[in-house]
Amino acid sequence: MLDITVRDQKNLVTGEALSRALEEAAPVLARAQAGEEKYRDSQGWLNLDKWASDQWLEQIEAIAENVKKTCDAFVVIGVGGSNNAARSVIEALSDGTGTEIIYAGNTLSPHALNRMLQSLEGKDYAIDCIAKNFETLEPGSSFRILREAMAKKYSPEEAARRTICTGTYGSSLERLCEQEGYTFVPFPTDVGGRYSAFSCVGLLPMACAGIDIRALVRGGKDMEKLLHETGAETNPALRYAVLRNLYHQRGYVMEILASFEPQFRWFSKWWVQLFAESEGKDGKGIFPAAAEYSEELHAVGQYLQDGAPLMFETFLFVREPTGSLVIHPDGRRDDFDYLDGKDFGDINRAAFEATLKAHSAKMPCLILGIGRLDAYHFGQLFYFFQFACYLSGEILGINPFDQPGVEAYKGWMFKALGK
Amino acid sequence: MLDITVRDQKNLVTGEALSRALEEAAPVLARAQAGEEKYRDSQGWLNLDKWASDQWLEQIEAIAENVKKTCDAFVVIGVGGSNNAARSVIEALSDGTGTEIIYAGNTLSPHALNRMLQSLEGKDYAIDCIAKNFETLEPGSSFRILREAMAKKYSPEEAARRTICTGTYGSSLERLCEQEGYTFVPFPTDVGGRYSAFSCVGLLPMACAGIDIRALVRGGKDMEKLLHETGAETNPALRYAVLRNLYHQRGYVMEILASFEPQFRWFSKWWVQLFAESEGKDGKGIFPAAAEYSEELHAVGQYLQDGAPLMFETFLFVREPTGSLVIHPDGRRDDFDYLDGKDFGDINRAAFEATLKAHSAKMPCLILGIGRLDAYHFGQLFYFFQFACYLSGEILGINPFDQPGVEAYKGWMFKALGK
Repeated sequence: MLDITVRDQKNLVTGEALSRALEEAAPVLARAQAGEEKYRDSQGWLNLDKWASDQWLEQIEAIAENVKKTCDAFVVIGVGGSNNAARSVIEALSDGTGTEIIYAGNTLSPHALNRMLQSLEGKDYAIDCIAKNFETLEPGSSFRILREAMAKKYSPEEAARRTICTGTYGSSLERLCEQEGYTFVPFPTDVGGRYSAFSCVGLLPMACAGIDIRALVRGGKDMEKLLHETGAETNPALRYAVLRNLYHQRGYVMEILASFEPQFRWFSKWWVQLFAESEGKDGKGIFPAAAEYSEELHAVGQYLQDGAPLMFETFLFVREPTGSLVIHPDGRRDDFDYLDGKDFGDINRAAFEATLKAHSAKMPCLILGIGRLDAYHFGQLFYFFQFACYLSGEILGINPFDQPGVEAYKGWMFKALGK
Repeated sequence: MLDITVRDQKNLVTGEALSRALEEAAPVLARAQAGEEKYRDSQGWLNLDKWASDQWLEQIEAIAENVKKTCDAFVVIGVGGSNNAARSVIEALSDGTGTEIIYAGNTLSPHALNRMLQSLEGKDYAIDCIAKNFETLEPGSSFRILREAMAKKYSPEEAARRTICTGTYGSSLERLCEQEGYTFVPFPTDVGGRYSAFSCVGLLPMACAGIDIRALVRGGKDMEKLLHETGAETNPALRYAVLRNLYHQRGYVMEILASFEPQFRWFSKWWVQLFAESEGKDGKGIFPAAAEYSEELHAVGQYLQDGAPLMFETFLFVREPTGSLVIHPDGRRDDFDYLDGKDFGDINRAAFEATLKAHSAKMPCLILGIGRLDAYHFGQLFYFFQFACYLSGEILGINPFDQPGVEAYKGWMFKALGK
């Protein structure tokens, strides 16, 4: 199970201060555990039995089986919360046994879209248009060009069989499915995009890619149970939420999510989106950024060690090495003979520990430890961060479930496009 | 040619304040144009004729021709400044006509390294170990495992013919090349990794990937001429350097480099590394971060619009659309009929302009405009930012050419690994 520890050589938050803050935040936790009336429209994700029950998993798996049988590729048309969770897991864990996943609906660049269309050439594919609010430009416009591409390749009936839409009940997307014979799967009405990992939104693309979504949901449910049954003093999500707010109050305006495993590259993006959209409002918020070590020790690493003290750092630490690869002596003496016989699993861990020593002398460091990097633990992480983000937003004093700022540029854009 | 404009509805820096600051910074520009004795060991990049002359280009092209003839893949073993420039251009412009480029030496993750080795299976390849200081762990250890992989696949003579090392004259890497018969190409002694785009470091991998390095260097030289011959009042690099420092002085601690073209994804990483390592020191520095729009308007976009006022934003704007793709009506009415007949080139530009309107009401926005997204303009951008970073560091009062903070974790790591 996930654990959370602190390394802070400056002792910016004493044990006493943390205990006091946890006690003060206890009502926030209690409210979250009970479910809050004011957020009723946004908390369908709190209880995984609602949108990730066995019945839902069976339906998702049935669709995915059909996709795997009939498709070389599966096009996920979605932006932001509509693709980040699925992509996190697929890019990390996909081993090539499932269907290839291609991403669309997340850009307006003609170059990127033409490349995407080229990558489909000669392949049989299905598409999944994921749009809670079917007025977002990126998925809507990509859906158009993919419908056109399918019309050139397939008969109308075959194209319809290969088209899935993930929208809310009663939406214009659902009506389109009825008219055209597309497959409709529900985007939970009471879940925002960035909290939608455990629903058709995240699980269907994962299942098509061959990810073990049962294990993922099991990890989520174990975390749900832990966070709902544990009190303020030892609840890891509350601890994380309280600590990050305490550091923020002490002047650290950014949080860096760091790991020594490139498999977390897209998960970090999911995490950035979750916190940026949830907390960046009302002139507030801890700015979330990601770092991929050891590579970026040779980049932002310099800034973190020596630059302005703007940030605290949260490490995603995987206890079991993500593989094994031993360096053998090859008879040539070079400046790396001290590595002979060493395994990269151990070298990478040494790099993590050295970085932790160096960085914790400069800034507060949190370590979120998990056992292994697999679907089960991704499930734990998704639920943990969603719940912690909710608590953290409450402590910060903002609504963690809306995103009013995304509307500003949309208004200007719709005007420019004559909508 | 590149131009730079400001959009700032709050008028945080008046024209008068900017003029005064440009005048004050004129001596910094004059020193940079003349070349400074104190930085003599780090300024080999200032004059492109030194390491990117026609003679060097001929040598690089000859090696690349041989690679293209004999290899399916070319493995770039390098971390930080040793691979970022090449990767920026290759990921953006490579059209599949050159050799496939595979990256190593930039991770210690056994999972990532095993995947990299798997991706070489069944392919003929050559390797290029790029290491100015041949004691950095990532390239050194990857070089070891790739030598082992080659020893299994090729005869010792053939493996040696397929091994290139990019190191400094007189280094242990050069000695290894002499002993083993590897091809040695020079890493400029007087250029740091992050300033090495225009040398064998950056140009050889680009050439192997089929990039037009002559056009890239031409762009760099045109920019060199412009920045060396233009005075303080109209010099775009000084203007950029001065503006970012003025915004920093007004409390904006971060700079977001944004673009509406995913082709800039790896270039943004190069830019982040350039500024983070150059300026993040002595407790100072503007924290550099990147945003890929329109996708991340649905993520950090919320924070930028509505969150804490921590940042100013710099847009990379490409005047000529990066392609064409028209949305045709397909007989189905949906919520996007207003897009019928529109080209994504225009839609993407409308999204940029809408974002600029929305963001410049909240924070200062700079626009760096270039004509097209091609090798020539990448050359302009590399030289522009390298020169501007040097000026900006001087204004900030740090040494833009060292990176003392990267050493801290290295010390702990070498200790842990028994070096």
